[in-house]
This record gives sequence, C-alpha cells and structure tokens, in this order.
Amino acid sequence: MEEVGRNMTVLEYADNILIIDMGLQFPEEDMPGIDYIIPNVDYLKGKERNIVGVIITHAHYDHIGAIPHLMPKLGNPPLFGTDLTIAIVKKRQEEYKDVSSKLELNQITKDSVINLGIFKVEFFGVSHNIPGAVGVAVHTPEGIVIHTGDFKIDERSGIAGTTELDKLEHWGKQNPLILLSDSTNSRETGKQLSEVDVSTELDEIVRNAKGRLIFGTFASLLGRLNEIIQIAAKHQKKLIIEGRSMKINIDIARELGYINVPKGVVIPVEEMNRYPRNEIMILATGAQGEDRAVLMRIANHEHPHIEAEKGDTFVFSSSVIPGNERTVQRLVDKLYREGVEVINYRMMDIHAGGHAKQEDLRKLIEIVKPRFLMPIEGNHSFLCIHGKLAKSMGLTDEQIIIADNGQIVECANGVCHKTKERASSEYVFVDGLGVGDIGDVVLRDRQMMAKDGMFVVIATFDSYARKVKGNPDIISRGFIYMRESKELLMEVRKLVRRIVESSAGDRGRGEINWVYIKDNIREEVGAFLYKKTHRHPMVLPVVIEI
Amino acid sequence: MEEVGRNMTVLEYADNILIIDMGLQFPEEDMPGIDYIIPNVDYLKGKERNIVGVIITHAHYDHIGAIPHLMPKLGNPPLFGTDLTIAIVKKRQEEYKDVSSKLELNQITKDSVINLGIFKVEFFGVSHNIPGAVGVAVHTPEGIVIHTGDFKIDERSGIAGTTELDKLEHWGKQNPLILLSDSTNSRETGKQLSEVDVSTELDEIVRNAKGRLIFGTFASLLGRLNEIIQIAAKHQKKLIIEGRSMKINIDIARELGYINVPKGVVIPVEEMNRYPRNEIMILATGAQGEDRAVLMRIANHEHPHIEAEKGDTFVFSSSVIPGNERTVQRLVDKLYREGVEVINYRMMDIHAGGHAKQEDLRKLIEIVKPRFLMPIEGNHSFLCIHGKLAKSMGLTDEQIIIADNGQIVECANGVCHKTKERASSEYVFVDGLGVGDIGDVVLRDRQMMAKDGMFVVIATFDSYARKVKGNPDIISRGFIYMRESKELLMEVRKLVRRIVESSAGDRGRGEINWVYIKDNIREEVGAFLYKKTHRHPMVLPVVIEI
Repeated sequence: MEEVGRNMTVLEYADNILIIDMGLQFPEEDMPGIDYIIPNVDYLKGKERNIVGVIITHAHYDHIGAIPHLMPKLGNPPLFGTDLTIAIVKKRQEEYKDVSSKLELNQITKDSVINLGIFKVEFFGVSHNIPGAVGVAVHTPEGIVIHTGDFKIDERSGIAGTTELDKLEHWGKQNPLILLSDSTNSRETGKQLSEVDVSTELDEIVRNAKGRLIFGTFASLLGRLNEIIQIAAKHQKKLIIEGRSMKINIDIARELGYINVPKGVVIPVEEMNRYPRNEIMILATGAQGEDRAVLMRIANHEHPHIEAEKGDTFVFSSSVIPGNERTVQRLVDKLYREGVEVINYRMMDIHAGGHAKQEDLRKLIEIVKPRFLMPIEGNHSFLCIHGKLAKSMGLTDEQIIIADNGQIVECANGVCHKTKERASSEYVFVDGLGVGDIGDVVLRDRQMMAKDGMFVVIATFDSYARKVKGNPDIISRGFIYMRESKELLMEVRKLVRRIVESSAGDRGRGEINWVYIKDNIREEVGAFLYKKTHRHPMVLPVVIEI
Repeated sequence: MEEVGRNMTVLEYADNILIIDMGLQFPEEDMPGIDYIIPNVDYLKGKERNIVGVIITHAHYDHIGAIPHLMPKLGNPPLFGTDLTIAIVKKRQEEYKDVSSKLELNQITKDSVINLGIFKVEFFGVSHNIPGAVGVAVHTPEGIVIHTGDFKIDERSGIAGTTELDKLEHWGKQNPLILLSDSTNSRETGKQLSEVDVSTELDEIVRNAKGRLIFGTFASLLGRLNEIIQIAAKHQKKLIIEGRSMKINIDIARELGYINVPKGVVIPVEEMNRYPRNEIMILATGAQGEDRAVLMRIANHEHPHIEAEKGDTFVFSSSVIPGNERTVQRLVDKLYREGVEVINYRMMDIHAGGHAKQEDLRKLIEIVKPRFLMPIEGNHSFLCIHGKLAKSMGLTDEQIIIADNGQIVECANGVCHKTKERASSEYVFVDGLGVGDIGDVVLRDRQMMAKDGMFVVIATFDSYARKVKGNPDIISRGFIYMRESKELLMEVRKLVRRIVESSAGDRGRGEINWVYIKDNIREEVGAFLYKKTHRHPMVLPVVIEI
C-alpha cells in the first residue's frame, strides 16, 4: 500500500459525468507545512449538475481523502462504495461535520449493477490490502471502460480479497474499449507476494518468539491486522492494540464482519503486566517513523505504558513509503539502542504490497484484451514502464495512452487518443483549515525562511527632523544566534540609518519615496549579511514615520 | 559509496593522539539550511599539542570534508595520505585559502611505515570506489589496532583497487588487539558486486546502444569514471564530460596516472554536433537529482548545450543515497517525459557499492582474528547487525564493542571495553561561513517558519496619549496569501490595539510592562490565528514607543 496519489478519474459522455475515486496526496519535501494535496476540480466548474455519481473503489486515503473537501464544491453528487468503504468514509466525515451533512452515501456490493445517467456500472472484487476493494466496469455508448482501482492478483489468500478474473474474462470477450490499470508496482518483475506467505512467515515468528513481540504496520492494512489477530489467537497470546486509527479501523471492520476477534485475545494495555512478557503481542501504528505514532513514542520513552526492553522483538510488517526512508531508519536505530531485536521486510517476507507486479499486469491485459490501455496511478516513469510491458505483448504505440495529470483523452468511433486539451491540474494544497489558499509565493517564502531564516529591520523616521530616531530595531529568527552577533547587528543598524537618511534626510526635497528606500534596505542589508555570513535570510524592512 | 558519515577516529595513548579521517556528514531533513555537519572536537581542546598526526584513508568527503574547518583548530598537525588523497585534499583547500596556508600534507604509499609519537603506523590497500584507498594498522604498546576505512573485497577488479589480504593475514598472526571495521553494508547478505561485473554490463549497454548515451554517476567514483572512459574508447565513441567536480577529479587522477584517457576520446561539448548522435557518450554529474547538477539541468531544459531527445538513453550508474529517493524519482520522471530511455541499478548490475557485505565482513574477521571487534561507520543498527554477524562466528558479547558517537573505549592489559566517559558529540553545523554558530534554537525557528510561516505585528504607541497610533503594521510571510486575507488582518489589528491599550492605556499607572504586553500579543494573536486557520505561524510582536 503506497498511499501517494491524489487519485481521481473523470468519465464524461455528453452531459453525463462519472467520477471514480477522490483521493489525497501527501506533500513532497519542498512543500513545507502542507498537510496534503487534493485533486484540482476546476474542469468541473459549471458542470456540477452533470455529475451522475462518484464511485469509490476502496477506503485508502489516496482514494477517499479529498471527499470532505470536494464533495460540497461539486454539489454533493451521490457516492457509491462497498460496506467497509462507506463505513470508513462516514467515520472520516465526522471530522468535517459542517460540510458533511449533505453527503449521500450508497452502499453497493461487488455484484451490484447500477445505472448512473447514460452509464451502466458494474464492479469486480480485487485483491488488495483492505477488504471491500473493487474495480469498476463502466458500460458506455463507446464501449466498456475498465478501471482496476488498486489491485494485485493473489489467488491464494482470502484475507487479501479475490480479483474476480471470471468477470474480467467475461467483459474481455466483449471487446472492451479501454483498460485503466494500476501502475504502482509496474517496475517490479514477477508476481506480488501472497498474503499467505506473509501470514506463514509471521506465524513462524510468533511460534519461535521467546520474548514480547511488537508488530508495526499501517492502520489501513486491515487484511494484515486480521492476520496478526488470528495468529495471536492461535498461539494463545494476549494482544494489545495501540494507536487510535488502528483501533477505529479494526472496530469498523469487526462490526461489518471482516475481522473476527476471538474472545479474550485482545486486552487493554493497562492489563499488560498481568501476563508474562512472552505471552504479550502488541500491534502498533507508526511503522513509517511518524513522530507522534506509537512506535516512535516507545522509542523515545514517551509512551505511558510501553517501554522497549531487551528481549523484545519489533516486527515491521510494512514497506517504507518513498520519502520516509530516513525517518524509518532513525526509528530503527533508536530501537536498536534499547537492545531489542528488529525484523523488517528486507530480512523476511513479512510484507506484501497491494499492487500488481509485472506478471500480474501482463495477465490482466491478456484476460481483458482491451483495445486501448491507459496505465494509471504511480509516477510518470511507472506509467511508461507499464506501457512498455504492454508493447512487449504486442500492443502498438497508438494503443497505449500515457497521460499526465489533467490530460484529456477522447474516445470516439472506437478510437482513443490524447487531445491537446488539458484540464487544470495545478496543485491544490490543504493546510489547516485552508484549502487552495496556499500558492507558490507562500511556499517559496517558507522554503527561503527554512533555509536561512528572516531578518526584519524596523526604522522609526522622524519626518520633522528628517532623522532616524534612536537605533533601528532588528528581529531575526532562524538566521544566526543573535546574542553572539551584537557587532554584526550594530553594523546593520548603522547601515540602515545611513540608507534612510541619505535618501530621505534632505529636508529640502519633497515627497519621500519609501518604496525605493525599502528596496535599498532590502538589497544592501541582504548583500551585507551575505558577505558576512554567506547566508541569505529574507530581509524585511519596515519604516515607521512619525 | 554512501557519503553520509562524519567519520573521525581518535586513538590516544598517554600523551600521543592519532586521528584517523576527518569527514563531514550531510544534514538530515530536519536541519533546514545546514550545509553539512562536522565532527565535534571539544574532547581535543587543550590536547592539541599531543596530536602526532592525522591519517586520511581516502579522498571521499565523508573522510576529508572537515579538514579545512578542523585542522586550524587543532594546530595543523601533520596530515598523511596517498597521492590521490593528498591531491584532492589540496584541491579542496583552494576554496578555503585563508585557513589552509599552514597545512602540512605528507604523501605515503600503501607500503609506507611511519612513526608518529609512540605509534608505528602501517597501511594496507583496500578495494573501494576511489583509487588510493587504504586501511591502517597502528602498532600500539597494547597491541595492533586495525582500522579498515571504507572497504570491500573485490578480488577481480584492478580498477577498484585490491584489499591486501596478505598484509591482514600477517598482522592476524600477531594476535591483533582490535579491528575497527566498516559497517555501511552490514545489512546486505552475500558479497559486494565486483566492478568487473559492472564493467561488463556497461560495456554491453554501449555495444547495443542505437542512440546517444548519457551516464550519470558520482564525481567521486573515480574507478567507475575510468571504466566508462575505457569503454568509450573501446567502442570508438566520443565522450563529453559535464560537471565541474567530475572534470576536476578526472584531471587530478589523470595527472597521477590513475586514469589513462586515450587521445581523441574526450571532446568538448561544443563539438558534439560534429558527430552522429549514436557516436556520442556523455558522462554527467547529478545522479542523485541535485538541483544544479548536469542531469537535472538537462531534464529542466536549462543546459546550454544538451537537450534530452527521443533515442537517448540515460544510464544511472549509481545507487540512491538514503534521503534522495524522491529527488531521484523526480529526475527520472522528468526524463521519461522527454521520451528517453532510463536504465538504473534496479534493472541491471550497473552499480557496485564500495562497502563490504556480510560475506566480506566475515572473511575479514576470519583473517584478522582480532581479540576485539568494533564495528564502525553506518547507522547504529548497522553496527549492531555487524556485531551479530561476529557473534554468529563465535565472538562473545564482551569481544564486540558497539559504540555510539563520542563513546570512549579503553584498552588496557589486553582488554577493551566501553568506559562511562563520553566525548562531546553534539552536532557542529556548517552553514555558509558559520561553523558551530547554529544551535537548536535557530534550527527550531527555521522548522517552525517552514511549517506555518511568520507574522510580525508592529504597534506604535504614543506614550503621551497612551494610545496606539494609527493601525498596527503587519508583515507576514509563508502564512497565508495576504491580499486575500484583509478581513483577518483588520481583526488582528483591532485585537492588538485592544491588548496594548488595555494594559498600557491607563494614564494613571506607572511604568509600562512591555514584556508582559508582548507576551500577551504573542499568545492572543497566535490563538486567534490558529482558530481562524488551524496554522501556527511564529508571532513576533514589536511595540515602538514614541
């Protein structure tokens, strides 16, 4: 499960618009302070009434995360998803009470058939890391459009769900128009690991454990969480579940019957000390090294109940999301310092991704036999690699459509091609309560201040005496340690006074050009500070006239 | 080659101090604006005169980078290294002219024997990614201390250099006291790939290429650069070398005879268009996705001579340094968008690391048979894993010394152990011209401003009228887009005026407590802004009394 995309696909036929998924993307390193990024829906402005429905393929944040922000903007069209998907969407809406009241949530199953405007929509179950995941087959006047959502083919594991190849085969016989297929793992050769293998390996670890076991994984990996619960039960362990999101997800899945928690297996953390350490298993959030999650709090001695101790084994049943490598490494190093054992997916097969690798992708293309293939999800290079795979199977360049965000693809008379038109795909940032109010300028300022800090100079100008009054004030943060730079600051004060008085000090002249003077201060102080420190703080001049 | 450590080892016997390596470390993600980190030498304060010498094992930045900053502080003790090491150190000193004049550089060979104070120092050649790399054997009154520097065992490649196992065997027979051994790749099973295999694979790529080839690698990987030059010559290609650091390094290695550039192979970029594209090879910096390096400039259409074009193949002959994953991915995506082919180490064996994997580490321990093993270099967990490996070979816990930065290890009467003493190992940051002047406070301020920006409020207080004069000024950056937030700003101005006047406005009272008033502004404006935006900009109040 790599939750990185702000997934959203729009199908439009005449005045019928169908939306598939509405996800969020986590920010890149050069977007400090941004909470996440949501899809840009400028293209839909003025067309809100044409939206016949929103299909959500599964309940991961990269597929549901933008719902609270976008649905009100789009006039709250009806939303469709399986039971678990709807339950998790509903739960999340509780955090956005003011906007969520009007949401119309409709439950479907993988065997539902629904008519939305001109479209007939069918579904197929897929193997993924969360139960209730589906792909979509949309019957349009131009032919069948098949959208996989996130999928892999895991024939052996019930927990991961089953990709209903028979349905795909059935549609495959109807000469489907286009296949939109998950490219997240298109770089990986072979087949994705089965959850059965993961389960076997985890079982082995629990069987052989001599001390306490702490499992770290994603709260959204409900299949994995279920496995660990069943393994705990099998080996008569007591299981403690730590982390709010994990508890919530398990509760939801339990209520819907996706997870069966045998009686007496799960205990509250407060009861941990009643049992010998080797009977204890802990299931915790924070396997990505997140600062406030359970694992990091344990590593930092900040957890109220759990201390890492010699004899403990920490099992990271997860991959590392790109960008988190160093944070995870920091967590692992901290744990090693406590003298514990650490096992991760590099050492053993204790994590299976949720996405099809090359062999699975090839199989899907063989079964569906689409007239056109459009790789979706994943970085641009992953789409290209997915396309190359298809080419090696005999598809022509014309049959493979590699589209960037916002690219409009048109299908008419049996032919699909990229148009020259593009929907707006500029980043829409969510930061606190603000949606879309942070632009490039604000981000650039943040980057600049992060790099070398800022430096405010405040000069009070006596417009009668035409003199700077007293010493200009300086406020600086993130630049240098002020107390040890008194001399530097004195020089800046002198410089500022000189700039102001030489430009504005002449009593004889008329109107004072403050914009010009401030520009001068910015430039000269900036140059002076750079010369002295080789740093470029953001210089902000203020002149107060009295 | 993972240049991540600020490597430095200090050996002390009575009043004899020997230093091995003096490297820099690149900053972590939570250290914005920091250029790099150098070793903390507080422990050596007052002992400068005891330093008998500084040995540099090889010329990578994580082993030489701190020389210009630390040597003057340590009284410029004599420095020793092989010809290439000394040449690169000298070249780098040119950037630090003011401090470098007094440096005493001494050239040794891998067969030198030098006496430094009480220590007799011998060397052994090692395979690594740069020529002239050595390990060190220090004969002390307590026994032989062997320090590997960075090494792997590559018996087949001349280019990578040879690890002189015969010397190690010889010392191994003398019951050496302690082995300090490279742990960078201790997590990896098996043997490190040989440069011969890399060379074969690269040769194959060049042989089969139909278009232009662009190779990206590290400028410091001199062995690899040499291979690529020889392959270009063999296939009658014209080679263009782009990137200042790469050109400099190749020139130095060429002068010393480490690289032989056959006549007519290397051409200036200006002559590129005289040859058909399929005869052109380019060797470029920037394989880590660095913003200003050649590859990113090509991808951004910013390079004055080179444009990526369909038919080009980009070959990344390098690994990805942890922390650079997303930047490299961004570069690769940009290149794919240009329609070129990209090959990296995930697809083919076109990069060999410079560090011993488990099988090599095991072999070294077998040969040296040290009484004690101290894993060095790499994250704490890598040291532990290296230790475990040794334990599996029969060493006891007491024989394996896992030491954190700054840990003092004492060897006396044939026994080594960690003491309770620790040398200061706090970070020393280099930022611009400043060394060690950036502390936690400055870093925390930078992080805070990066996250939510800053917000300066300037109120002018008329102390006669006891009123705030006019409207308080507000300067904010990185917080919100100011022009669209006029209402919010008006409310803040009102709030500030109210706070100041309610505390200071009473004419009857005496001295005004400005500290208290400013604290109030900071708190109340902060709370107000958070309520309105859920963001926490840094609030900086200024009150000017007139």
